[in-house]
Amino acid sequence: MSNGDIFLGEVIGTAILILFGAGVVAAVLLNYSKAKDGGWIVIAFGWGFGVMAGAYTAAPLSGGHLNPAVTIGIAIDTGVWDKVGIYIAGQMVGAMLGAVLCWLVYFAQFQANRDEKIAQPTLGIFSTAPAIRNPVANLITEIIATIALVLPILAFGLTKGLVLSGTGILIVSFLVVGIGLSLGGPTGYAINPARDLGPRIIHALLPIPNKGGSDWGYSWIPVVGPLIGGALSGVIFNAAF
Amino acid sequence: MSNGDIFLGEVIGTAILILFGAGVVAAVLLNYSKAKDGGWIVIAFGWGFGVMAGAYTAAPLSGGHLNPAVTIGIAIDTGVWDKVGIYIAGQMVGAMLGAVLCWLVYFAQFQANRDEKIAQPTLGIFSTAPAIRNPVANLITEIIATIALVLPILAFGLTKGLVLSGTGILIVSFLVVGIGLSLGGPTGYAINPARDLGPRIIHALLPIPNKGGSDWGYSWIPVVGPLIGGALSGVIFNAAF
Amino acid sequence: MSNGDIFLGEVIGTAILILFGAGVVAAVLLNYSKAKDGGWIVIAFGWGFGVMAGAYTAAPLSGGHLNPAVTIGIAIDTGVWDKVGIYIAGQMVGAMLGAVLCWLVYFAQFQANRDEKIAQPTLGIFSTAPAIRNPVANLITEIIATIALVLPILAFGLTKGLVLSGTGILIVSFLVVGIGLSLGGPTGYAINPARDLGPRIIHALLPIPNKGGSDWGYSWIPVVGPLIGGALSGVIFNAAF
Amino acid sequence: MSNGDIFLGEVIGTAILILFGAGVVAAVLLNYSKAKDGGWIVIAFGWGFGVMAGAYTAAPLSGGHLNPAVTIGIAIDTGVWDKVGIYIAGQMVGAMLGAVLCWLVYFAQFQANRDEKIAQPTLGIFSTAPAIRNPVANLITEIIATIALVLPILAFGLTKGLVLSGTGILIVSFLVVGIGLSLGGPTGYAINPARDLGPRIIHALLPIPNKGGSDWGYSWIPVVGPLIGGALSGVIFNAAF
Repeated sequence: MSNGDIFLGEVIGTAILILFGAGVVAAVLLNYSKAKDGGWIVIAFGWGFGVMAGAYTAAPLSGGHLNPAVTIGIAIDTGVWDKVGIYIAGQMVGAMLGAVLCWLVYFAQFQANRDEKIAQPTLGIFSTAPAIRNPVANLITEIIATIALVLPILAFGLTKGLVLSGTGILIVSFLVVGIGLSLGGPTGYAINPARDLGPRIIHALLPIPNKGGSDWGYSWIPVVGPLIGGALSGVIFNAAF
Repeated sequence: MSNGDIFLGEVIGTAILILFGAGVVAAVLLNYSKAKDGGWIVIAFGWGFGVMAGAYTAAPLSGGHLNPAVTIGIAIDTGVWDKVGIYIAGQMVGAMLGAVLCWLVYFAQFQANRDEKIAQPTLGIFSTAPAIRNPVANLITEIIATIALVLPILAFGLTKGLVLSGTGILIVSFLVVGIGLSLGGPTGYAINPARDLGPRIIHALLPIPNKGGSDWGYSWIPVVGPLIGGALSGVIFNAAF
Repeated sequence: MSNGDIFLGEVIGTAILILFGAGVVAAVLLNYSKAKDGGWIVIAFGWGFGVMAGAYTAAPLSGGHLNPAVTIGIAIDTGVWDKVGIYIAGQMVGAMLGAVLCWLVYFAQFQANRDEKIAQPTLGIFSTAPAIRNPVANLITEIIATIALVLPILAFGLTKGLVLSGTGILIVSFLVVGIGLSLGGPTGYAINPARDLGPRIIHALLPIPNKGGSDWGYSWIPVVGPLIGGALSGVIFNAAF
Repeated sequence: MSNGDIFLGEVIGTAILILFGAGVVAAVLLNYSKAKDGGWIVIAFGWGFGVMAGAYTAAPLSGGHLNPAVTIGIAIDTGVWDKVGIYIAGQMVGAMLGAVLCWLVYFAQFQANRDEKIAQPTLGIFSTAPAIRNPVANLITEIIATIALVLPILAFGLTKGLVLSGTGILIVSFLVVGIGLSLGGPTGYAINPARDLGPRIIHALLPIPNKGGSDWGYSWIPVVGPLIGGALSGVIFNAAF
């Protein structure tokens, strides 16, 4: 895979992931959305099928990592680091693009925030926030939840040849649904630095009325936690398998 | 595949799709339905499994496009246009047939509308309507949501030989679930001109008591938006892959 | 496949199907159930995964029809009728056995009905009932919903060798989820004569406190409707494919 | 497979299973969880995808039993007993490890129990409890629900070579979802002695504020019931298949 293909694949795939992922939170949270109050099951399956859509689309170009924590876990497993930078660059650009696309899809809903009486904070659509703000606990949650993503991916062999198999990516998608259902309660499961940081930057830039702050004080946790979790997954995998 | 097989396959497959899709909205919206108030998760999975049922059934005859936006995306990708008309004709006939079948399945529920006090508008079962009426925003939503359908379909290779694979169509079905969950909030995700226009025509024709208007003023958006989205998907695919 | 294997396979498979199917309705309806009020999504997936569990288990012995409507649709398609009786006999015995197993699983919950003040009718756990009682409309609903089951099964080739494929049965299971979500609103989707009649007989026989009547006046519709639907599926399939 | 690999695989796989399974109950029950009141559909899919995550991860090392009832059912089927002890030891250690991981993920939520006014019993996150306490009925429920797990697993051939197939484990995961939806109402579906006893021990040991008792009086039922169910599955399978 050429660097250009990798970059393009990760941009497209991560953009689709964030379009679906941010989109499903918008669908459930925003006033004037037909999916308003659809519940946690809607959010978890929306993110999972976002992974499915993005990864199958990116797979022919880049293998479809879509997540720096996955890229780093694979690099530690395989010892091959020279493509890591291009993967992460594509993921960040894609995550930002996806956040813009989500804003376009829900444009009329976001604009309805101009009426201050019905305005609601919108950061939760773009980035994660903890239910209880406790940096150490939040960091541990993100580390463990990311290991629950990356260790199984390594174990079922997606790293060997980055298969385009009919079911491999589908299973990872259900894995992401499961992480959302089971481990998303405390922090909203970033488990992916690009997924959180890219859309947070876009939130800060977009002209959404009454959007509230971008909570930069918390922003390092969903970056550092998943990076540690991805790295630990590679280490555990090499030790155990 | 002969023209007759293509037409028949698209009629049967699209009829099944709309039977399930319109059916699930009827199930959730109509008084005297056991699935009343089943929620957005029910609607999204009902439409997705409708794609699954229709596409697997149509696949041996026509490959199972069931959607003019898919047909046009594939035509732009492959450069083969001579079957496009027969595909779209079958899809329109099938969509109208499916809407009639849905009416028959929920006949007693629709007839209950004779009692004006419990009567409810029924157009939402047949066709989409926006949560916030804003033609430009609604059009953009439909374009992006359709790209999120057709670009992944092109990318994972369903166009190459129109495979009858065990999992290809299943994955497209989950993709449609995901689009519903994540991108359906603003407009109810037509993402298919035949899916919206065919049942709208049938709504206008059927003798449903107190059915309300057919909202022809909005009807062009779920036709034009998905056509643009399907065409853009073909263009993006050819440029990027 | 010997007659003994077919009978045994259909008994075991249909018993599992009804254990899960009647079980999920008990789970959602009965007081003192942890899944109380779980909603329509729970019911539809419970029945679908019941098909999955029963059909994969029965497949090595009998191919896993579990439904006289499927057996008849296949017989019309293939022209082979000599095993039809043994299949249906096994399905009826299995459905009755499954209803007894469901009663055992929820025994304490059923016994709580002894307290008349909290007693509730229990027939809905065993057999279907229409939301609006209208024999012609109910019959049409069951016919169309059964065609939506059997025609896709025939079309995707499960009849050719009764495959034990990794995904064929899974897809049928999701098809049943979809039928439940989309077409179950008016009559509760029997779509299987054995599924409805077997448990209705068991309901009439079991010593459940305050169980209410067994509604024999309606009982012919979920038998005749699915049989017509299964037969029509075979006819349509032979004509169209 | 060496004893070391089997032990390690079962530890890792069962830890992941319990992390997801206990995690999803925490997600739905605990105050200050974003998935609070997500409903039974969330719980059932969370446990099912926990099986998926754990079993795919463990499969290359141990085949991924993760459940003494499965191990015993396979032993009776195959007549090979010499690895049973190492499997069960790994499962118990893994279940305890997974319970600790779940506590870490939800640490801040558990600590919020320090405020006695919002404190809630936490045992339900770790272990099962019956909706109606009736030892005979509860035991029968667990036996039948475990047969509904192990008999299909044996029937679709996972015992022959412990396949790493792309779909076998996925289907078992959906089977567990189905058991949860359909048969979980009376006792919360332990169907796995390690899943219940391991986390119960951890519940007794962890310093969770206001955690309530560990209900040792009930603890034998979710151990004995699943063991009987697993053994009966092996017996039924050998007799019928």
